[in-house]
Amino acid sequence: MKRIIFSLFCYAAIPAMAQTGGGLTKYVNPLIGTERMGHVYPGATVPFGMVQLSPDTDTIPYEMNGRYNGDVYKYCAGYQYTDKTIVGFSHTHFSGTGHSDLGDFLVMPTMGKLQLNPGTADHPETGYRSRFSHDNEVARAGYYKVKLDDDNIIAELTATNRVGLHQYTFPAKGDAHIILDMMSGIYNYKEKNVWTFIRVENDTLITGWRQTNGWARTRIEYFAMAFSKPFKQYGHEKYDRQVYRGFWGKFDNSKNFPEMAGHQIRAYFDFDVNAGEKVLVKMALSPVSTEGALKNMKAELPGWDFAAVRQQADQLWEKELAKIKVNTISADDKVNFYTAMYHAFINPTTYMDVDGQYRGLDMNIHKANGFTNYTTFSLWDTYRALHPFFNLIQPKRNADMVQSMMAHFDQSAQHMLPVWSHYANENWCMIGYHAVSVIADAIVKGNTPFDANKALDACVTTARHRTYDGLGYYMDKGYVPEDKSGSSVSKTLEYAYDDWAIAQAAKKLGRDDIYNEFIKRSLNYKNVYDPVSGFMRPKLDNGEFRKEFDALKTHGQGFIEGNAWNYSLYVPQYPEDMIEMMGGKKRFAIHLDSLFTMHLPDEFFAETEDITRDGIIGNYVHGNEPSHHTVYLYNYTTTPWQTQSRVRMILKKMYRPTSDGLGGNDDCGQMSAWYIFSSLGFYPIAPGSGQYSLGSPAIVDATLHLENGNTFTVETKNQSDKNVYVSKVELNGVKLDRKYITHEEIMKGGKIVFYMSAKPNKRA
Amino acid sequence: MKRIIFSLFCYAAIPAMAQTGGGLTKYVNPLIGTERMGHVYPGATVPFGMVQLSPDTDTIPYEMNGRYNGDVYKYCAGYQYTDKTIVGFSHTHFSGTGHSDLGDFLVMPTMGKLQLNPGTADHPETGYRSRFSHDNEVARAGYYKVKLDDDNIIAELTATNRVGLHQYTFPAKGDAHIILDMMSGIYNYKEKNVWTFIRVENDTLITGWRQTNGWARTRIEYFAMAFSKPFKQYGHEKYDRQVYRGFWGKFDNSKNFPEMAGHQIRAYFDFDVNAGEKVLVKMALSPVSTEGALKNMKAELPGWDFAAVRQQADQLWEKELAKIKVNTISADDKVNFYTAMYHAFINPTTYMDVDGQYRGLDMNIHKANGFTNYTTFSLWDTYRALHPFFNLIQPKRNADMVQSMMAHFDQSAQHMLPVWSHYANENWCMIGYHAVSVIADAIVKGNTPFDANKALDACVTTARHRTYDGLGYYMDKGYVPEDKSGSSVSKTLEYAYDDWAIAQAAKKLGRDDIYNEFIKRSLNYKNVYDPVSGFMRPKLDNGEFRKEFDALKTHGQGFIEGNAWNYSLYVPQYPEDMIEMMGGKKRFAIHLDSLFTMHLPDEFFAETEDITRDGIIGNYVHGNEPSHHTVYLYNYTTTPWQTQSRVRMILKKMYRPTSDGLGGNDDCGQMSAWYIFSSLGFYPIAPGSGQYSLGSPAIVDATLHLENGNTFTVETKNQSDKNVYVSKVELNGVKLDRKYITHEEIMKGGKIVFYMSAKPNKRA
Repeated sequence: MKRIIFSLFCYAAIPAMAQTGGGLTKYVNPLIGTERMGHVYPGATVPFGMVQLSPDTDTIPYEMNGRYNGDVYKYCAGYQYTDKTIVGFSHTHFSGTGHSDLGDFLVMPTMGKLQLNPGTADHPETGYRSRFSHDNEVARAGYYKVKLDDDNIIAELTATNRVGLHQYTFPAKGDAHIILDMMSGIYNYKEKNVWTFIRVENDTLITGWRQTNGWARTRIEYFAMAFSKPFKQYGHEKYDRQVYRGFWGKFDNSKNFPEMAGHQIRAYFDFDVNAGEKVLVKMALSPVSTEGALKNMKAELPGWDFAAVRQQADQLWEKELAKIKVNTISADDKVNFYTAMYHAFINPTTYMDVDGQYRGLDMNIHKANGFTNYTTFSLWDTYRALHPFFNLIQPKRNADMVQSMMAHFDQSAQHMLPVWSHYANENWCMIGYHAVSVIADAIVKGNTPFDANKALDACVTTARHRTYDGLGYYMDKGYVPEDKSGSSVSKTLEYAYDDWAIAQAAKKLGRDDIYNEFIKRSLNYKNVYDPVSGFMRPKLDNGEFRKEFDALKTHGQGFIEGNAWNYSLYVPQYPEDMIEMMGGKKRFAIHLDSLFTMHLPDEFFAETEDITRDGIIGNYVHGNEPSHHTVYLYNYTTTPWQTQSRVRMILKKMYRPTSDGLGGNDDCGQMSAWYIFSSLGFYPIAPGSGQYSLGSPAIVDATLHLENGNTFTVETKNQSDKNVYVSKVELNGVKLDRKYITHEEIMKGGKIVFYMSAKPNKRA
Repeated sequence: MKRIIFSLFCYAAIPAMAQTGGGLTKYVNPLIGTERMGHVYPGATVPFGMVQLSPDTDTIPYEMNGRYNGDVYKYCAGYQYTDKTIVGFSHTHFSGTGHSDLGDFLVMPTMGKLQLNPGTADHPETGYRSRFSHDNEVARAGYYKVKLDDDNIIAELTATNRVGLHQYTFPAKGDAHIILDMMSGIYNYKEKNVWTFIRVENDTLITGWRQTNGWARTRIEYFAMAFSKPFKQYGHEKYDRQVYRGFWGKFDNSKNFPEMAGHQIRAYFDFDVNAGEKVLVKMALSPVSTEGALKNMKAELPGWDFAAVRQQADQLWEKELAKIKVNTISADDKVNFYTAMYHAFINPTTYMDVDGQYRGLDMNIHKANGFTNYTTFSLWDTYRALHPFFNLIQPKRNADMVQSMMAHFDQSAQHMLPVWSHYANENWCMIGYHAVSVIADAIVKGNTPFDANKALDACVTTARHRTYDGLGYYMDKGYVPEDKSGSSVSKTLEYAYDDWAIAQAAKKLGRDDIYNEFIKRSLNYKNVYDPVSGFMRPKLDNGEFRKEFDALKTHGQGFIEGNAWNYSLYVPQYPEDMIEMMGGKKRFAIHLDSLFTMHLPDEFFAETEDITRDGIIGNYVHGNEPSHHTVYLYNYTTTPWQTQSRVRMILKKMYRPTSDGLGGNDDCGQMSAWYIFSSLGFYPIAPGSGQYSLGSPAIVDATLHLENGNTFTVETKNQSDKNVYVSKVELNGVKLDRKYITHEEIMKGGKIVFYMSAKPNKRA
């Protein structure tokens, strides 16, 4: 069941398009990847926006009977394309993650009898949720529209950075309700809510907050919610266990009582509406306070002009997308390209009020001086290509992200840079300390409108944190012993890469002692290589390789989200040395070939995380990040042209303009960044190196409008879906005799021309 | 079992005394009233201090087996004198309340094997709690000391406004532990804790906070805790239900992991100590943030000089106590007097950081501009005598309290002044809107360094809040119908008094419309008077008195904390009119006599709240506030001298210098304020009137040092415990032919002389 969404709106004339300029944003289709493993959401957000206002087709609410009504993993983004009902519209969503949280402040309009429970997917009529059809659904950059079939209400969503705007058009005269469900949320634990709080400030304004213990251990999000017309009455139900209360009998608490609080509450606001009447709702967020949320609302969205806000959102996206102008072979490619740009520019998200205040990791309120504070750092994913992409095309934002990480470091009780952090919390997900790669890449590339030495010091302190995840053993022995700390090979390899990145930054800053310390550590990859099997292999504390070993199994073999067959290739800092160590260029090319062509038996696939069968090619798992540099390793072997053909194959196979078009979690834009780089013909296999390995561009031509004012153009000659090989490359008119270009070369502006061919140039 | 504590330290030479100046503070005995119903605590605090650092002999912690290990009411202040063990020392305590909350951040030192559970009172050896003896206990204003017998540790406590200081002297070389129990707290619900959070900032400093859903629905208190020497290791246990966690395996969470959080956690910090070694702990509080707590610590208690901090606390108390210098008939009287002053100057407590920031009722952070923000307003109690006492002797603070109430009003979603509020919460305890009495009293007495008209507007808005506690009915019908809203007679009577107070303030400010509206409402007491029974009596919505009626029963009869026999006398604004209505002076005097002399059968006593049998005299219930003005009503009858004799009798009977010396809850100082006024010979029966009704002074002489620089002296002639009658009164040398003096007369300075006699002057 494939849904070719692209054809729905691009080849058909859609009036809505005209309203919004009809620039590059028309190539963005937020529905791509909303089915199965993509874990992206179709709702409204602006670039790097604090609000991600999107329909939830299911979440994991607290049910009174203690059962969960869904699959937590499936609903990381709250939406699955194949679902038939919408529960409501909530204001925060991760984009593409493999873990879940957020889903704050679910709002839903209904008519007729008030139903405060969501009901079930099979029987939406038993609750406030509604059936919907994709025929009545429109998703655009910064805009979402759907008809809620149960009550025939048209719901439209748009957003500014910090404010979500809902517009509900009611079909008939009658009793309308707008439900605010403080219990609904994305996560798998029934008591995620720690506390919720609502205040009715007046008959068009409410404020409140929710504190959760979800994936983020201690998270608090504030809101201010305004209605375009006064509600006639309101109330709430509390689904808590009973708590002793002293003297609340003074008021009727359930109705028109302006202070609602509890672990589990749902509120409603009632309106008399006429046929065709629109009621608008603004929901401003803040990480600081309800006062902050109100400030954000006043600053960003003081009025009620839905069309204007929608147009502004479209223009914000247009501006970001226009940083790369591409011509593509097919319209599908263009949709894929700009949708990838769109997905790359969602995370990290703004995490501060308009006045610069934000909640820090220490839970205190801080002020971001001279930078925008961002959150949601999925660094194990995004250090690979997303942050290098930002360094290229969003250097200002990338530097702000680095400053956000440095603030995190300053606020950290652990004195560590972020590992996987969101909303003033560190969730310690995945392995490594890859913030150092992001920082080193920025330093090496000279994108440092911050104190680079201080940033390097933070990297070093982080990399010396002995109690972190086997790091003490690694520092003492040169590897993480599997019997002391699991996933030991992956950790050793990634620490070694990160250490190399630190060394590169130290070199650039002339910090010789640090360079010497970490360049030595960067060679630790050698310590887990087993020349007998030819694979990286878990080693024990006693210095011996563990006996039990299966190069295809992914669990319990010393690797995380990978197996020895694919993870062994993770030495991005020293590809030549690794290849030499593994038997030389020819033997390595054969290993790479085996990776792409072998059949992975079902038993091994079944334990491979975060991807669908579509997300792997042989034993090459594009849906998981450790393989993202792999195809470019052909460049260092005897068959470099295989990089070219296989890159093009991966681009076609793993990215399709359909609801199930993403072969794995988009991972906060990392998968999309891979697409963008690879489409442009180059990829940063080792961030911190300043080099981009050349592949095979999939575009016809592309112009990169750099922040420094320069323009860098990628041009192809003789481009087609068949002409996937590169016979010659010219940089600024001069033939390029190497398999990479440098960051400096791009930033200076200029032109690179790829001469495409159906056959490999085996002499190049 | 009476404990004459006074003799323990006043008649014996106690070396500690010498250290602290030996002024008036030596007459303060914080142990008075710590047994049974007094609900005061013996620990260390400074006047109106944010920190109340006191031993808890039992609390209501969350037990894993779901059972509570105590009586919530008994432990309102955390301490009961008859208990044999101390659980630990916590930092916030109500003084004298009849409801419980607080008990934040319990700290306990132990030695030897670490025990993280508190253990039981019967078997303290099963946990960290310890036996103790009153022989080894010293309680002073701002200082507390006890030997913890189980491990022979000497614990000493003192405080600044916002910081508690502990000094633990360990008896021997060994393993010492300082336990921080975030689960312990005062309240009756096992899941009071909403969330707790601890961060280890470095090896001598931790920060954190606790959020609770106790009596206050949503309360959050922050701390910063410093140790005088580095701990060698630390850890915590979590007594939560298990919560799914993603990737915490990176660290050993239980030990030396600097981020601890959960619903229920207990932390410990380990030290090697030598014999006689002192380890000090500072705990700074903040209503704002851990940053605020650190700020408070740095500003108020940067060093580690326990003796100096203790001395400073003593001096702060000395300064407040010295505002009234008394000579008494007996040493016991002096202890009673200055202990009453001490208890009167504990609440309300400071509720803002040193920089003026505090948490408002809207949960946002506000800054107190030009005033100190206070919290814990037990207004149903304290409007009667405590706030009038402040208006007299602490006018600056009283005005700040009014401004704190006005800020509460501004932040209130209900647009109401506080009823019973604490820590940025309104708990709506008891009845009435007595903040208006406090404000009116300040306005009438000219103590208004704030916008008096704005304050009056807040009073009026509050008094017109139709959905509050039967108020709409009251406004429409002139009484609260018992079938619509319980305790209807008490509400009607108190609303009527409050309304009169508003009218007085309006008159003073020339707001005629408001005066007219509220002076009319002030007559509503008449609407619940039943001339047939001669009592105030519950009336129904249909305008008829309810048939079922028992003038002695306290429950279900239209009264709260009282019965018709005593509560019917609550018309303080119009004593003459009330007396006339009730049959005239003679008949009323007989009723008053009956009140004091009747025998209240056990069945009626049993249902009388908040007092011991000692707290009542006949059917006069001094332990509950509605009677506090009653004895002064004799002044308006044919036997005014009965005011004099019975005041002296009440002073003797209800206030004794013993652990069980308070006849009822001290109620945040209201009981003590009654003692002080009555000892001085006058009492404000109707705050807002500017008059004090004369009684019989119990002191020999007293000098009031007023804030305006004037001095007012109360002198007695021929004073003795037998000479309880006043034969003549002279004000500034002129014989006084009335039964009251005015606030203005006192504030001008001067002297009042009471001529005492063993026999009543029936002609006076």
